[in-house]
Amino acid sequence: MIALRRQVRFEEVDAAGLMFFAHFAAYAHEAMERLFDAVDGGYVALITRRRIGFPAVTLSAEFTAPLRYGDVAVVHASVVRLGTKSAQLGYRFERETDGAACALLTHTVVATDLGALKSCPMPADVRAALEAHLGPR
Amino acid sequence: MIALRRQVRFEEVDAAGLMFFAHFAAYAHEAMERLFDAVDGGYVALITRRRIGFPAVTLSAEFTAPLRYGDVAVVHASVVRLGTKSAQLGYRFERETDGAACALLTHTVVATDLGALKSCPMPADVRAALEAHLGPR
Amino acid sequence: MIALRRQVRFEEVDAAGLMFFAHFAAYAHEAMERLFDAVDGGYVALITRRRIGFPAVTLSAEFTAPLRYGDVAVVHASVVRLGTKSAQLGYRFERETDGAACALLTHTVVATDLGALKSCPMPADVRAALEAHLGPR
Amino acid sequence: MIALRRQVRFEEVDAAGLMFFAHFAAYAHEAMERLFDAVDGGYVALITRRRIGFPAVTLSAEFTAPLRYGDVAVVHASVVRLGTKSAQLGYRFERETDGAACALLTHTVVATDLGALKSCPMPADVRAALEAHLGPR
Repeated sequence: MIALRRQVRFEEVDAAGLMFFAHFAAYAHEAMERLFDAVDGGYVALITRRRIGFPAVTLSAEFTAPLRYGDVAVVHASVVRLGTKSAQLGYRFERETDGAACALLTHTVVATDLGALKSCPMPADVRAALEAHLGPR
Repeated sequence: MIALRRQVRFEEVDAAGLMFFAHFAAYAHEAMERLFDAVDGGYVALITRRRIGFPAVTLSAEFTAPLRYGDVAVVHASVVRLGTKSAQLGYRFERETDGAACALLTHTVVATDLGALKSCPMPADVRAALEAHLGPR
Repeated sequence: MIALRRQVRFEEVDAAGLMFFAHFAAYAHEAMERLFDAVDGGYVALITRRRIGFPAVTLSAEFTAPLRYGDVAVVHASVVRLGTKSAQLGYRFERETDGAACALLTHTVVATDLGALKSCPMPADVRAALEAHLGPR
Repeated sequence: MIALRRQVRFEEVDAAGLMFFAHFAAYAHEAMERLFDAVDGGYVALITRRRIGFPAVTLSAEFTAPLRYGDVAVVHASVVRLGTKSAQLGYRFERETDGAACALLTHTVVATDLGALKSCPMPADVRAALEAHLGPR
């Protein structure tokens, strides 16, 4: 499990004054990338050099409290289930000031050869990196 | 049911060369706003003058085909279920060139007084606007 | 000269309630792409098939009136100066409801081979497309 | 002068594979907010509680080297000129790995009462915060 601390930016709120809901998915992606930190060069090298990505096949979210400009979200990310080609990731969003539970996300991703845009088995080092983060959401 | 035609923009792709997955939620929101077109002033007036919004309480998505820069997404949006305070909305994303099914989203929103940030009954005109779009996803 | 009509989206305002200033550059880019419409496949094909892009070398902007959620910006774009490798583009932003002048942008771009990331002479068809839009800002 | 370290995110590149140019302005804004850190509650409190903002009246930029996914930008921000209502801010973008100069931005902002959307004199504490960052770009 990793925890990403992320402050809501000036331009991330919407006309209702709340963080735009799509940004929860962007924050989750940012946390997801950290789950690959043990891979040489991290998620960046995976994408840009090895051309292996992890596009989403499903995403589901429950939103329980809003975030506003300046709020700090703490995103706890873990690997809930790990297959040979796919992984189910979980994210729990907390508001730092008061510990309020803001959102729960579940995200299934599939190892993908970005050249052919076809699923592929996860390389051993990548699987090991994710395995180290297995845990409850 | 409404259909929103939306071309993937130059800056909406990610480092994997595909439309970033969070933008599916943004496109869905854009389509959602059209469901309120029959309300006087549309969703804009609802938010900025009447201060009533429809934040998401849940979102779930299945992604089946990617979108790339220049692709046109056709987003078919409908009201799947309508309560007194909440609505369940459905979105079907199609790639215009080949008709490929790209994504299915389900989105539950709750009428919310943006001053108090509390749920509130849907005003009659708003409910009527949504009612006209009741249908399967 | 082309004119792009673009409505400010729900998620494009910032915590001050105004369209975030960086989005003026994004709108300008969207208008810029239209200047290439006469090229076969448009700017999309230029980028994705021919791998020729037009990164910015300079940008300057004066902002005179804000845009808010729901406002429609009309962006008048033209080619102010045309070289063999570079072009200076001008954009005039108007607010549709009242015709208020919102912003004036000047943008210098250079034809670039995206493989080598080196400037290159503009292909003849591209130059012709831009030439047709020569005019004052 | 402050220095903001900011890694280019997965979703911040464009179809040409480079950080989208409008994001330079977003990064600059993020650095600008740090210049107000000495104000009680920072820029966040200024915007959300005191309802005083600093919209841009001009922005100019020269771009000299691109940023890509995973690159770390170091943004050096300073106050180049300070008036009673306005300030001219300067930003120098460096690529952390090789120290390459990526961009130089100049940004003029005006203290603005966000209720009336009229310029206003800078409060003394705000001016003092900016004064501490006076320096060359």
